[in-house]
Amino acid sequence: MKEKEFINIIKNTLNSKYIGDDCAYLKELGIVVTQDSLVEDVHFKMDFTTPYQLGYKSVMVNISDICASGAKPLYLTIALSLPQYINSDFVKQFYQGAKKACNGVEIVGGDITGSDKIFISITAIGSSKNRTISSRSSAKAGYKIILSGNHGSSAAGLRQLINGEKNGKFVNAHLMPVARIEFSKNLAENINEAYAMMDTSDGLMDALSTIAKESNVLMSIDFDKIPFDKDLKNFNDYTDLILYGGEDYELIAAVPENFAQGYIIGDVLSGQGVEIKYDNKKVLYTSNDIENKLFNHFKENS
Amino acid sequence: MKEKEFINIIKNTLNSKYIGDDCAYLKELGIVVTQDSLVEDVHFKMDFTTPYQLGYKSVMVNISDICASGAKPLYLTIALSLPQYINSDFVKQFYQGAKKACNGVEIVGGDITGSDKIFISITAIGSSKNRTISSRSSAKAGYKIILSGNHGSSAAGLRQLINGEKNGKFVNAHLMPVARIEFSKNLAENINEAYAMMDTSDGLMDALSTIAKESNVLMSIDFDKIPFDKDLKNFNDYTDLILYGGEDYELIAAVPENFAQGYIIGDVLSGQGVEIKYDNKKVLYTSNDIENKLFNHFKENS
Repeated sequence: MKEKEFINIIKNTLNSKYIGDDCAYLKELGIVVTQDSLVEDVHFKMDFTTPYQLGYKSVMVNISDICASGAKPLYLTIALSLPQYINSDFVKQFYQGAKKACNGVEIVGGDITGSDKIFISITAIGSSKNRTISSRSSAKAGYKIILSGNHGSSAAGLRQLINGEKNGKFVNAHLMPVARIEFSKNLAENINEAYAMMDTSDGLMDALSTIAKESNVLMSIDFDKIPFDKDLKNFNDYTDLILYGGEDYELIAAVPENFAQGYIIGDVLSGQGVEIKYDNKKVLYTSNDIENKLFNHFKENS
Repeated sequence: MKEKEFINIIKNTLNSKYIGDDCAYLKELGIVVTQDSLVEDVHFKMDFTTPYQLGYKSVMVNISDICASGAKPLYLTIALSLPQYINSDFVKQFYQGAKKACNGVEIVGGDITGSDKIFISITAIGSSKNRTISSRSSAKAGYKIILSGNHGSSAAGLRQLINGEKNGKFVNAHLMPVARIEFSKNLAENINEAYAMMDTSDGLMDALSTIAKESNVLMSIDFDKIPFDKDLKNFNDYTDLILYGGEDYELIAAVPENFAQGYIIGDVLSGQGVEIKYDNKKVLYTSNDIENKLFNHFKENS
């Protein structure tokens, strides 16, 4: 939870309008920019990933952030800090994976230094040309809440990896996610109204709660409409995997009804927080409820 | 030396025209972008710096890279990874230092995560509007070699810090460098010809050698014309500090004679490598000579 405290300090120190969304929208330059770091043993373990998969996922995560803004992903820089034992094969495979994830996006620079553990920091740049850029604070009562795809698979895959499994669709969902480039493009090229969009890197509930808080609205969700792989039902706590599991890198958006695409999972209402309808009951979660749940339930991955 | 091997692997894997200069020039967007990482106990030690100085220098180093390209520095993103023991005061002071260094440049985003050691990765974006962007491969025989200011002070300051000194002009030069924004602007706004420019973050000889290699020319330098603080003569090996010491963050450029500004220290000639004239002798250094010397002489800081 310290991260959120630090972000508030940074906001207050800089007094900047930019800090808040995952991407900064630099209107003057017609670009959005985002930077994300992945630290060994905090965000990933080399026991669970190959260098190729690591390169792939590191890039994809940043492309996903650009997609969440509605911009067109174009360029990346990659800073790698590597321990002494890392050899050329690692670097080659990492960059082969990175290149695979690029899918038209170009890696144009970066940095390489020494370190004790593997440290990856990637910056992605997208173009806002002919796109309407999203903001977390733009959800409005009356908007529909839409989702690009399945939730819970990545968290299930992480659990399988921890339990020693190496393959399967959930493991693959965790290691080789796919950013929703087309979903983002279809929306951002056609919409003129202000809208909210995020990726679900920290889980569906975290994204819902963040949009609810930043937009000062109630996000009302019908649990039965959330898409997920039916084999998740083999996990006792599959509803938690779906709602709180991270790293599916799907997109969630709140948009006017006529721009609804993908899965329509609920409505934006006046109010505050996130409301989930299960069968015939409704549960209201405040942002504190969700933060506590995330912290207690998934702290191995925080 | 492993870094150079890895960079070649990255170049080969990506087959990109961008990898090479410190900044990537993205013509389509009218921007240059650069990313640099600073790792605790590799690039800095908390014994020698305050959080304020660390924030200041981390930002200034990236602004210097943008200046080296000739672009106008505009925006930064900062990714910080911080060990558990770091408190809010550290973050506040770091960002106060960062803000001080900005001098009109705006911090627009970034990331904050956990880690074992402090890890800082900064991306800087500059605008190429009304500027001619430099390239390391654009030095030509007949060009003048120019420099923005004193060399050796930062390396002398680092040595004093290691020896327990805490203050003084050399220590200050090491901890609080100043990027040469005006030198860069004056050149890039007025020149139309292709030219080479770098900052001297890895030392004067490294910059000379890199330009010589990338441009396939001989950089001929008159040692007596290199500006330095006369108190450096108190160090036995002051010529090494001047030539090989890093982190002065001055700019070196090879430009047509009519654009020469600052200190004119030599000439670009046909040939290869770096030639230094001391009093009445000339010494020719190949790029291998310089890399070996850097590796053996300054490896505590590599």
